[in-house]
Amino acid sequence: MEKHTFEMTLLFDFYGDLLTGKQQEYFDLYYNGDLSLSEIAEADGITRQGVRSVLKRGEDTLTDIEEKTGLVRRFGEQRLLVAGIEAQVRTLLEKTAEPETRALAGRILEDLQSLGD
Amino acid sequence: MEKHTFEMTLLFDFYGDLLTGKQQEYFDLYYNGDLSLSEIAEADGITRQGVRSVLKRGEDTLTDIEEKTGLVRRFGEQRLLVAGIEAQVRTLLEKTAEPETRALAGRILEDLQSLGD
Repeated sequence: MEKHTFEMTLLFDFYGDLLTGKQQEYFDLYYNGDLSLSEIAEADGITRQGVRSVLKRGEDTLTDIEEKTGLVRRFGEQRLLVAGIEAQVRTLLEKTAEPETRALAGRILEDLQSLGD
Repeated sequence: MEKHTFEMTLLFDFYGDLLTGKQQEYFDLYYNGDLSLSEIAEADGITRQGVRSVLKRGEDTLTDIEEKTGLVRRFGEQRLLVAGIEAQVRTLLEKTAEPETRALAGRILEDLQSLGD
């Protein structure tokens, strides 16, 4: 079972609450807690294959939701755009000495940062 | 059956592809096409109650997904923040006469607008 940690933690962050309780529990242990299949199996008193199968179904569900909705991709694209806008506001701050413009640009930068939260 | 058009078309826009084909079909006719339950029933050769039941299950699914993920709410909040930032950039443009600052602010405004698309 190949571990796609970056992709899966991102999808889990968005859609995790749509998984079953057991899928969420194993996802958290496997991806966030970095436990092995065997460690989860032992702790939960089931077979390693049982754990793998729960995780696999969860991964398939998350991947399917993203293929259908594209919301994680959409959020990611927005993040990139916001980062680009932030860089431009910083440039503007470097270029201008006008106090009022600087104050406005400072507030704009703060609001842009809260967009990324 | 109360018709929550604004809420449902918004949820449908985000999560519609997670519904069954039949739910999507009836949603489109009922919410986007503004057909009545009876008109859909007649066109599809089923009972009015059958149409209502398909739509109800679709609505429950969309509402449940939003309750669990909150993504539509999150997108909505971002839209408001972006609109607020746009207003501040317009103020900045009104206040400054510096050509370089104005050029930068103009590009920032364009990028903010593409965020809202």
